Amino acid sequence: MEDHLFSRDVAAAIEISRPEQQLGSDSAVQNLLAWFKGQANLEDRFGYVVRQSIDEVLDGQRTGRFDIKQLAKTEKTYLGTKVEIVARTEFGLGDGQRMDYLVAGHELDSKFTIGANWTIPLEADGHICLLIKANDRKSRYQVGLLRICSEFLNIGRNRDGKRTLSTAGRAAIQWIVPSGEIPENTLLALPESERLAIFHASSTYRGSGNGGQLRTNELFRRVQGRPVNRNTVLTVASQDDSPKRVRDARNHLRPEGILILGHQNQHPHIARDLGLPVPGKGSWVAVRVTQADGAESTRRTTQILGQHYMIWREGDPAPVAPPAY
Amino acid sequence: MEDHLFSRDVAAAIEISRPEQQLGSDSAVQNLLAWFKGQANLEDRFGYVVRQSIDEVLDGQRTGRFDIKQLAKTEKTYLGTKVEIVARTEFGLGDGQRMDYLVAGHELDSKFTIGANWTIPLEADGHICLLIKANDRKSRYQVGLLRICSEFLNIGRNRDGKRTLSTAGRAAIQWIVPSGEIPENTLLALPESERLAIFHASSTYRGSGNGGQLRTNELFRRVQGRPVNRNTVLTVASQDDSPKRVRDARNHLRPEGILILGHQNQHPHIARDLGLPVPGKGSWVAVRVTQADGAESTRRTTQILGQHYMIWREGDPAPVAPPAY
Repeated sequence: MEDHLFSRDVAAAIEISRPEQQLGSDSAVQNLLAWFKGQANLEDRFGYVVRQSIDEVLDGQRTGRFDIKQLAKTEKTYLGTKVEIVARTEFGLGDGQRMDYLVAGHELDSKFTIGANWTIPLEADGHICLLIKANDRKSRYQVGLLRICSEFLNIGRNRDGKRTLSTAGRAAIQWIVPSGEIPENTLLALPESERLAIFHASSTYRGSGNGGQLRTNELFRRVQGRPVNRNTVLTVASQDDSPKRVRDARNHLRPEGILILGHQNQHPHIARDLGLPVPGKGSWVAVRVTQADGAESTRRTTQILGQHYMIWREGDPAPVAPPAY
Repeated sequence: MEDHLFSRDVAAAIEISRPEQQLGSDSAVQNLLAWFKGQANLEDRFGYVVRQSIDEVLDGQRTGRFDIKQLAKTEKTYLGTKVEIVARTEFGLGDGQRMDYLVAGHELDSKFTIGANWTIPLEADGHICLLIKANDRKSRYQVGLLRICSEFLNIGRNRDGKRTLSTAGRAAIQWIVPSGEIPENTLLALPESERLAIFHASSTYRGSGNGGQLRTNELFRRVQGRPVNRNTVLTVASQDDSPKRVRDARNHLRPEGILILGHQNQHPHIARDLGLPVPGKGSWVAVRVTQADGAESTRRTTQILGQHYMIWREGDPAPVAPPAY
């Protein structure tokens, strides 16, 4: 046992001397790389996999949580399993015999981390790993491939006998997506004061059932010009019918000159006219507007019910939203 | 440390001598018991908590799984966390300072098991636990309360230092629901041959996108007279729009004399007429029917578009479903 450890350590110490070309000569890794790179909309789909997995484990609708830091240890561990499942479905990956996946005829293990490095169990030695790393705060993720060998692992082990990737190991990763974007976690991205204002919007309300609506209204008052997705509304509202909460918010906020644009009706058209992100399905963009008559001609406008509107700015006349849109 | 261990073991050995009356004298446990027993539809709601938690972790829509046995170890561990979250939301339980919940002014820990016994960590000593046990195969669950003390724990420990409840501990549980019913896990309850026929209904199909529909059709051919819920359809179809799959199955199965009744239109009325379970929202009941004209008058019938129908039996004329319902 001691001898074995020693030989691994020596191997780790000489990792730098490993010929570079050897990295590219692993045909299984190259086949897998080609397979993944051949998938349509690769970056968006891995971004979706990460966003969806994090959101499902946060379970914001039930728990009000929006930050991985709020997860219990068992939930953080499970997050890796959820990523494995969602990636499998998203890319139609087969079941491996010995490892998680079978892709392009090769067995492949899934390893996910929200930290700075991956932890690799002893039994992964010789396996090819699909390494996924996510930073929800920075909205960035990475996906790559690496065949694990002792030279690519640091010497220290944690309690479970797992080891982290060494500098040489990280350098040897064949990147599928070296730097991808996770759809923004709206609540996490907000300043603390804004978030508290949204979650506390119902704190003085003592009736039943309507607190979620007050919080949804406050969400669209404070988050404007950026897409707000279904999960964010569910997390804020703690209710399951997010489209209904948004429809009601639309009525409640109209007197304040706020539009909430979705993906239906003329909404995408209005968003494009005003230079806003165009909301996809299950996503909304709020914006405060006012009538554009007589304003300087350089500002973008949109026509609703025969009247021109532009995005409201400080100094404009009071915000006014159209009666219907 | 050794001494401490010894004293716990001695305490465990003399557990039988503990006066019975002491069990009932714990006012916190009695308050909690009264609080839970005062909740409306207590049994149905705990049954829902267990069903929903298991179904979410199985993630049948993505994985095709229907049996807890198919879960990985991390998922089984996480199932306890999911039950804790779903129960919290269902009953509006507060967050504890030191434990999971704060209910009626008392701190309360959540402990879930799918096995024969609960495993209790050392740090739970003195805590009141909400003990939930589920057997999905038997569709039964139990919920009870117990203040943990060393007398109620067996001597042996597992690797994490956890101990199981002793016979005396199990006898001291104050039951909230001593024997409740979990909504049936339709796929788990089916004989293996029926299940395989459903999942393999698409195996000779080589087109794209329609395999889920073929499996959904087979589900309603083989599961009749019993409610089939949304999750079962999602698991069989591996697609997210279960109502659409069911609507299409309704059209595909009409030529075979099969009705698929939902909760809308005259469907509940038809179900009642025929003595079938009445489908709730997100649930359907399939049944093979034929025209009832001239049949013996003892059989239940229902009228659809001016024509009488009854449940088809062996020996009846060929099954015939109405053209619309």
